[in-house]
Amino acid sequence: MDRSRRQKLSNALKESSLDALVLNPSPSLLYATGLHFHLMERPVIGIFNADGRVGIVLPELETAKLHGMEIEAFPFGENPATWTDVFRKALNAFGLDGKRIGVEPLAMRILEYRYLQAAAPKATFPDATETIASLRIRKDADEIAAMRKAVKIAENALEATLPMIKVGVSETEIASELVMQLLKHGSHSPFPFQPIVSGGPNGANPHATPTERKLQEGDLLVIDWGALYKDYVSDMTRTFAIGEIDDEARKIHEIVQAANAAGRAAGKPGLPASVVDIAARKVIDKAGYGEYFTHRTGHGLGMEGHEAPYMRADNQRILEPGMAFTVEPGIYLPNQNGVRIEDDMIVTKDGVESLTSLPREIRVLG
Amino acid sequence: MDRSRRQKLSNALKESSLDALVLNPSPSLLYATGLHFHLMERPVIGIFNADGRVGIVLPELETAKLHGMEIEAFPFGENPATWTDVFRKALNAFGLDGKRIGVEPLAMRILEYRYLQAAAPKATFPDATETIASLRIRKDADEIAAMRKAVKIAENALEATLPMIKVGVSETEIASELVMQLLKHGSHSPFPFQPIVSGGPNGANPHATPTERKLQEGDLLVIDWGALYKDYVSDMTRTFAIGEIDDEARKIHEIVQAANAAGRAAGKPGLPASVVDIAARKVIDKAGYGEYFTHRTGHGLGMEGHEAPYMRADNQRILEPGMAFTVEPGIYLPNQNGVRIEDDMIVTKDGVESLTSLPREIRVLG
Repeated sequence: MDRSRRQKLSNALKESSLDALVLNPSPSLLYATGLHFHLMERPVIGIFNADGRVGIVLPELETAKLHGMEIEAFPFGENPATWTDVFRKALNAFGLDGKRIGVEPLAMRILEYRYLQAAAPKATFPDATETIASLRIRKDADEIAAMRKAVKIAENALEATLPMIKVGVSETEIASELVMQLLKHGSHSPFPFQPIVSGGPNGANPHATPTERKLQEGDLLVIDWGALYKDYVSDMTRTFAIGEIDDEARKIHEIVQAANAAGRAAGKPGLPASVVDIAARKVIDKAGYGEYFTHRTGHGLGMEGHEAPYMRADNQRILEPGMAFTVEPGIYLPNQNGVRIEDDMIVTKDGVESLTSLPREIRVLG
Repeated sequence: MDRSRRQKLSNALKESSLDALVLNPSPSLLYATGLHFHLMERPVIGIFNADGRVGIVLPELETAKLHGMEIEAFPFGENPATWTDVFRKALNAFGLDGKRIGVEPLAMRILEYRYLQAAAPKATFPDATETIASLRIRKDADEIAAMRKAVKIAENALEATLPMIKVGVSETEIASELVMQLLKHGSHSPFPFQPIVSGGPNGANPHATPTERKLQEGDLLVIDWGALYKDYVSDMTRTFAIGEIDDEARKIHEIVQAANAAGRAAGKPGLPASVVDIAARKVIDKAGYGEYFTHRTGHGLGMEGHEAPYMRADNQRILEPGMAFTVEPGIYLPNQNGVRIEDDMIVTKDGVESLTSLPREIRVLG
């Protein structure tokens, strides 16, 4: 367990007037302890006291994981009837009944929440999302190195996949090949998300799942994919032309490419996250396609594919060195086609750097 | 959306005195609607009214998914400040404030829960786990066919992986090869869990993660892996010998193999789930290794790798045709080695059938 993170977390809790933080298996628990736990039918929680002490409630058969760590274990057996008592013992050991115990609403389930409420009936459970985000949002050198590697793996895997893409090949065939290439090039599992491969009209759905549809001459093809390396992710999108595409397809690709460039250029330390969204959106609005850019310009990334900061026009969060986010404007023409171009950015001391470097101009395949 | 499932769910809600069921993205939501939603920072929920009406609160950019379905959409935009109103509108449309709204504590997060509480402040949110399990626990012919295929894919993938297993190969190398073979043989993504490959002393941890440790002569090697096919999973374990193993290793494998056989033979319709655990555990207890069998004998499986029924000595749930569960006794000798043998069973009209058929006797590799 990283001592400096433990100290920073303790400080952040005090600044947020929280007596403790309780995490269930989640990227934040991994961040705070270095331990991998799975979300399952057994309620695992980590307790982070503001004074720096740490405890974990976990199944007996997982206690070996804590060997050599300064973490107090509160193990439970197979019978759920005994679990409430173990939770009570753990929360009492830290004197937490009646206290302010921060939780992560995006991760914690009613399962763990109800055990906590039963164990500390007088406690309150305020939203600690911002407290944790304030630590995780600024990546250190090791974290950036892992993200850089996750980007490189994704780029190499895509390049290795491109030769098989041509008219007549299905979206699922391309997605399977890309998954294998990601693993071959060193992606860890699980991926941050399953690759999106959507051709022609399917590209108009930003969250499409690969189908059996075969590529046709004149299709635009959207590929949105990412890798995992040492618990950190990448998340990229490129759009390709299958043979000869029509003028509007070419035009919307040019617009999105310009919007992506504007979004990438807009961020720097001291400016709010909103500037990235506003800059990219302006390009698409001006070109007359504003109503077809139906989502925010991007999201933070790190241990999760979607995390703070979110690139929305209403997000006033100030960008700081070490923050990582995507720039991914798109145009989606229903029943026709779609374009998205997505890069992964890091805020540096005086600007931003794109971790991604694959060509963004349209490439003709097949 | 499956009409018979919608009808069954409506009946089950009435029998449980629930006015509605609310699900966030989870296998149960997929079961009830056929729709894939991802767990993300945006709070998606499905509302299943006891009268059979269905609504979904979801991001605007996902509403296309509901096309042609008898589901009322309650879409929200990118700004979280507007989401509470959309939740309120949805719950009011079904008249649910003050009512009994069932939830799934193992799946629903505090995120969705707090929106629900804000939208229906007088409602109660009882645990509906059993109500949903009562539907999902009995698999129909299509579901069993998908599980059979998921088993076949896993078996073929393991057979294709075995030739590379020998002294000097690391656990992570074997795991990567197995992942690729699973995909090649037709597993869908994501897998129900990442394969466990644990050699020698690492095998003594039932939940081990593959390490860089290289196989050594005399190791026992535990491989626990599964595939996904059409939303249904398989989950198997076999234990191998790397070259010549010592007498105790051979002995504990024989004991576990006998315990597995006893557990597989014990279940049939009308008996409680407990008989499976008791039968397998008795073999290991009698052989003097009871204290080294540290977990329950098995768990249900279907859309999830772990679901009801759980094979514990205290589980009185009566087995019925269509139920699916694992039988996976093990012996774990700390700092020494481990053995587990796991099969996937279906309860038939008059007994049980093993979907898995890979040899269970010890095989020597390398």
